[in-house]
Amino acid sequence: MSWNARRFWLSKWKGLSPIEAVGCLSERPFGRIFGFECLSFPSSTPSTTETEAMQAKNELPRREFIGSMTAALVGGSAVNSAALGSWLGQDESTQAAAGRSTEPVRMGIIGVGGRGTYLLRLLLEQGVEVPAVCDIRPARLEIAVNLIAKAREGRKPATYGKDPFDYRHLLARDDLEAVLVATPMQWHAVMSVDALRAGKHVLSEVSAAVTLQECWDLVHAVEETGRIYMLAENCCYWHPVMMIRNMVRKGIFGELTFAECGYVHDCRALAFEADGSLTWRGELSRDHRGNLYPTHSLGPVAQWLGINRGDRLVSLVAAETKHAGMRHYIEKRFPPDHPARKLQFKAADSTTVLIRTAKGVLIDLRYDVKSARPHPTTVYYSLQGTTASYDSRIDGIWIEGRSPSYQWQPLDTYREEFEDPLWKEHRAAAEKTGHAGGDFFVLHQFLEAIRRGGPSPIDVYDAVTWSAVTPLSEISLNEGGRVVEIPDFTRGKWESRS
Amino acid sequence: MSWNARRFWLSKWKGLSPIEAVGCLSERPFGRIFGFECLSFPSSTPSTTETEAMQAKNELPRREFIGSMTAALVGGSAVNSAALGSWLGQDESTQAAAGRSTEPVRMGIIGVGGRGTYLLRLLLEQGVEVPAVCDIRPARLEIAVNLIAKAREGRKPATYGKDPFDYRHLLARDDLEAVLVATPMQWHAVMSVDALRAGKHVLSEVSAAVTLQECWDLVHAVEETGRIYMLAENCCYWHPVMMIRNMVRKGIFGELTFAECGYVHDCRALAFEADGSLTWRGELSRDHRGNLYPTHSLGPVAQWLGINRGDRLVSLVAAETKHAGMRHYIEKRFPPDHPARKLQFKAADSTTVLIRTAKGVLIDLRYDVKSARPHPTTVYYSLQGTTASYDSRIDGIWIEGRSPSYQWQPLDTYREEFEDPLWKEHRAAAEKTGHAGGDFFVLHQFLEAIRRGGPSPIDVYDAVTWSAVTPLSEISLNEGGRVVEIPDFTRGKWESRS
Repeated sequence: MSWNARRFWLSKWKGLSPIEAVGCLSERPFGRIFGFECLSFPSSTPSTTETEAMQAKNELPRREFIGSMTAALVGGSAVNSAALGSWLGQDESTQAAAGRSTEPVRMGIIGVGGRGTYLLRLLLEQGVEVPAVCDIRPARLEIAVNLIAKAREGRKPATYGKDPFDYRHLLARDDLEAVLVATPMQWHAVMSVDALRAGKHVLSEVSAAVTLQECWDLVHAVEETGRIYMLAENCCYWHPVMMIRNMVRKGIFGELTFAECGYVHDCRALAFEADGSLTWRGELSRDHRGNLYPTHSLGPVAQWLGINRGDRLVSLVAAETKHAGMRHYIEKRFPPDHPARKLQFKAADSTTVLIRTAKGVLIDLRYDVKSARPHPTTVYYSLQGTTASYDSRIDGIWIEGRSPSYQWQPLDTYREEFEDPLWKEHRAAAEKTGHAGGDFFVLHQFLEAIRRGGPSPIDVYDAVTWSAVTPLSEISLNEGGRVVEIPDFTRGKWESRS
Repeated sequence: MSWNARRFWLSKWKGLSPIEAVGCLSERPFGRIFGFECLSFPSSTPSTTETEAMQAKNELPRREFIGSMTAALVGGSAVNSAALGSWLGQDESTQAAAGRSTEPVRMGIIGVGGRGTYLLRLLLEQGVEVPAVCDIRPARLEIAVNLIAKAREGRKPATYGKDPFDYRHLLARDDLEAVLVATPMQWHAVMSVDALRAGKHVLSEVSAAVTLQECWDLVHAVEETGRIYMLAENCCYWHPVMMIRNMVRKGIFGELTFAECGYVHDCRALAFEADGSLTWRGELSRDHRGNLYPTHSLGPVAQWLGINRGDRLVSLVAAETKHAGMRHYIEKRFPPDHPARKLQFKAADSTTVLIRTAKGVLIDLRYDVKSARPHPTTVYYSLQGTTASYDSRIDGIWIEGRSPSYQWQPLDTYREEFEDPLWKEHRAAAEKTGHAGGDFFVLHQFLEAIRRGGPSPIDVYDAVTWSAVTPLSEISLNEGGRVVEIPDFTRGKWESRS
């Protein structure tokens, strides 16, 4: 079956309920859209600087802290802290670690809910060794253990999860090169920082962070440990997204001027547990306003624009709607005396952020997870340059001097010429996996980066730049729609990075 | 042929060049998209308060001023200033004038370029008497005169146009009830104000005004004269637009929260005369930044939202791209030593304005007339409510409890139930005219309003509220993206108007 971009954009999620589409309840590959496990970890967020606080309290430099934590927490049973420190020391000053042999990559998985379990399956298929898994729910752990045992001729992995911080015992193991962090979003940064400082490469689910402090913590952790940190942003690997990126790099769009992107996905059902208490999504929406999930939309566009590689995001302004969609949903779902009826959410139905880049590109970024609508076109992208225009919503591209006069063409028209080499090589494997191949490539590229010794395909600078839209848009809204500067997390390196 | 909304949105302008699409060079009905005559009047704009300045100088109250101007300018040859003053006096305090007989409406036409001539044809077809026309170009006048003579058994209209202000002699005639203003945009407000104060009903092409002072001048002129003022916003009468409005009024969308609209149309060719000098469009773009053409996009959405009828626009913030598209165009079109190469335009390639309403709806409004792209989807609209969602770009509607689970449906699915009564009644006539029927209904509704004695279907409050986005977005941009308050031109009446 030949690739059909129109079908891709407009019909991919046709007929899925919102819960199926997020993949918490369904295991169908196309059911796992952008979701993480809702129940895997308690949704109260740890202090964003808890690790640093512990470190400061002990008055230890970072490397000693890691060794100390390792010894204190697990008594050295499966740990060789000297080796860990040594490995860390070798790579501390550079992210491009030396290449490694072709033996299997050894990864731990933190969070094996619906999303983590699905990625675990794909990792096992890609030949990864998984000696340890972590989840606070025994039932989820059991599923993961059985999957791994089946792939390892009966050998079961070590398990962690006796409390929310038990993941740190997993991190202290010396038989893991890397970890996948697939827990609720509020935990991603603190776990990733802990993992990096324990000498592990990190593949983090999206978003990378929810506060500016977490963003900087991640940057510092990567810079100081030299480990590979990759954001598991699967939309960046979608076929049309990569094809447009390829076209941009080949100059087809000329000078870029404008882009739109959005994540518009009715996730109201996912804000609540079955009993009406809030999931981590619900708590995030209760406690924050702004764009609370920016990377699926912004990530691909930022890559097209070369953000942190010749251009950078410099400022944003946010505006939001009233609150109506969630109230409508709650009134339908919960009886009048239910506690959910009294909930107040800070996040509005829809939030739009306008972002300006150093080169003068304007990005229109929308986030809406509370509006009643079907799921096709959950994410969308458009790009305008001086010589071409693209809009995923209509599967339309127009190229000056190539397209017939004043007619949109299906993107697929140009597939032979501009399909990304990765897709040409791995189409068959990619098309078997979730998120239209995105998940395959995220894992494939992360493992390749480890084998090559870096660099990260979606590195910490990109990860935190995209994720920082969450706290920055909240600041803009809280201050009445003020234009807010976006930190340069590369500290000047964006001008020369490639 | 049954109506097909998908074709309507995606293929209406397929294959037209930008110039054809604007209709300056083509007389094909579908070629006249949103355009006015480029050459009809000099593009230097008169002082926005010139009329008032003249009035103040003469120290005359308004009614005497009109009589005085009439006598002074045309010597009473075709004027009965007493009758004019009397007519004005009768209706001065109310817009809802008494009904009139079924005799033909008598209109003067100011501006008979491509756009004005086309509307003149439609007016003649609708039985309007046109005793006088005005244009500063004899060749355009001659075409109009011949058209009118043919429709009036050889009787030719009076002509005006010896200088840019000769339209005031036309306004002084007492055999005109109304005028159509179809001149370059910078002239609309001053001519409309003059016409209202001369006792004429006014149908004004879009936009209504380009400065805030002009907006208020129009409001005051309508309130003080009681004449009917209508903005000729044809997009408001498009079949899908009216159908959505009908659905909103019937509660299908529930509580409204978010809307998008845009005018994205490569009009770069229209900024220049054949010799490379600037047209009025070019001058507007040279002298101003912001959304310089907001009504085709905002008008329909504002009607859906009940703006000035229970809700109102309260604030906006604007952001813009770099300048690249026009430079690219100029470099292709003009040789290196051409003066056009040195032009600097204030208007960016693309400008996005986020507007917030009193009820908390967010409107995302885009304006882009300088980007290389084809013309289908030149305008687009989306609307989100608590129980339905619509997006013209994909011709998709979804209605809670009606649409199949999580699938967009073509809007046409609901035509039988929600087609606007005007379309049911006048489909055959409307489909023969330009802008997909919009032009037919604009004229039809204006004439009906005159016959009924009002009210105006798109009145001065709506006209200036939509048009004020131009100067307000410029203020926002000039002040670094500041949130700018939008004046309440109804002065509180928006809460109770229906």
